Amino acid sequence: MTQLESLLAQLHAFRDERDWQQFHNSKDLALAISIEAAEVNELFLWKSAQDVDPVKLRHELADVMSYCLLLADNHAIDLAQAITEKIHLNAHKYPVEKAKGKATKYTDL
Amino acid sequence: MTQLESLLAQLHAFRDERDWQQFHNSKDLALAISIEAAEVNELFLWKSAQDVDPVKLRHELADVMSYCLLLADNHAIDLAQAITEKIHLNAHKYPVEKAKGKATKYTDL
Amino acid sequence: MTQLESLLAQLHAFRDERDWQQFHNSKDLALAISIEAAEVNELFLWKSAQDVDPVKLRHELADVMSYCLLLADNHAIDLAQAITEKIHLNAHKYPVEKAKGKATKYTDL
Amino acid sequence: MTQLESLLAQLHAFRDERDWQQFHNSKDLALAISIEAAEVNELFLWKSAQDVDPVKLRHELADVMSYCLLLADNHAIDLAQAITEKIHLNAHKYPVEKAKGKATKYTDL
Repeated sequence: MTQLESLLAQLHAFRDERDWQQFHNSKDLALAISIEAAEVNELFLWKSAQDVDPVKLRHELADVMSYCLLLADNHAIDLAQAITEKIHLNAHKYPVEKAKGKATKYTDL
Repeated sequence: MTQLESLLAQLHAFRDERDWQQFHNSKDLALAISIEAAEVNELFLWKSAQDVDPVKLRHELADVMSYCLLLADNHAIDLAQAITEKIHLNAHKYPVEKAKGKATKYTDL
Repeated sequence: MTQLESLLAQLHAFRDERDWQQFHNSKDLALAISIEAAEVNELFLWKSAQDVDPVKLRHELADVMSYCLLLADNHAIDLAQAITEKIHLNAHKYPVEKAKGKATKYTDL
Repeated sequence: MTQLESLLAQLHAFRDERDWQQFHNSKDLALAISIEAAEVNELFLWKSAQDVDPVKLRHELADVMSYCLLLADNHAIDLAQAITEKIHLNAHKYPVEKAKGKATKYTDL
């Protein structure tokens, strides 16, 4: 079992004990990702990055990741493979010689 | 090396080849998580969950996860541990006997 | 007709010409607000505030506002009244003597 | 004074009494819009649209609108004009004969 599969198994156990799969349709899981992402951002609001509370950040990031794992599972997506694949795609969109040291979006490079 | 460490190593290699660490302060990484989360949600907009494009979903979820890994790394957060820890915290907030079959927020249980 | 009612009338005309009311259930309109809000934020990503493109900002803010007006209309909410009302509520949550010069959330004041 | 100018004047009075303009740089105001938009969305999470709490919706929409007004003001954007202008732009992107009855993004029409 990979590390992500083991995390997913823990999330499934928690969910199924509470009979919550009925709520976890993909559209609501996507919504949950956004809501948790906003809670990550709220930790930085009106502040500079170094003033973030590291314990709260840890917990909010865990929430974002958990909903990502559950949504990916609804569609049989292997997230580790997907990340590796996306890095390869981005390597084409952002060739080193064009993108080095620049934060420009690929559509404007 | 764990699976998440290996993914992070790939993300670092991609980032460092392009000299992009300079842009990756935590506040902007948090912002990037939200923006990518919105791109996940856009795949569901004006549609029902089953009409989502699975290839686009795969790529957008990979983006959310990638920025989560990079932000966690900025604060030396072990995301696998954090998820396990958060499941335990949620087990207290949402005891099975109270939460079973209900989508109510813990503050209203 | 108030200014907001006139804007809403323009949005309704645009919507009804395209027969789009069928898509504008409140849950999707809320989602649309978030997605447009993320497009506002993308204009600031990896940048400082003064580097924002003012024309793009103008258009993205218009999108956020438009979906707010449409969602409010679905629930017969008078947004001008709601804003005035919320300012009064916030005046209680953030009394001047406690909140002056501080960006602390009311729950931590 | 237009309706939006009057709302902005109320927001400024509230802000200036608390000496909060110092926190209201545009990047953080954009972030605040997203965070409040997520609070609107949280009212719909795991639910269907008709189960939303109308009083909470009223307040959260007021928050989104308030930060939009403050951010627009930072850049001297006339939001009423911007909305009218954006409707005209969208009329070109989504011509009635192509877009009628379809929720397709203009890039895919």
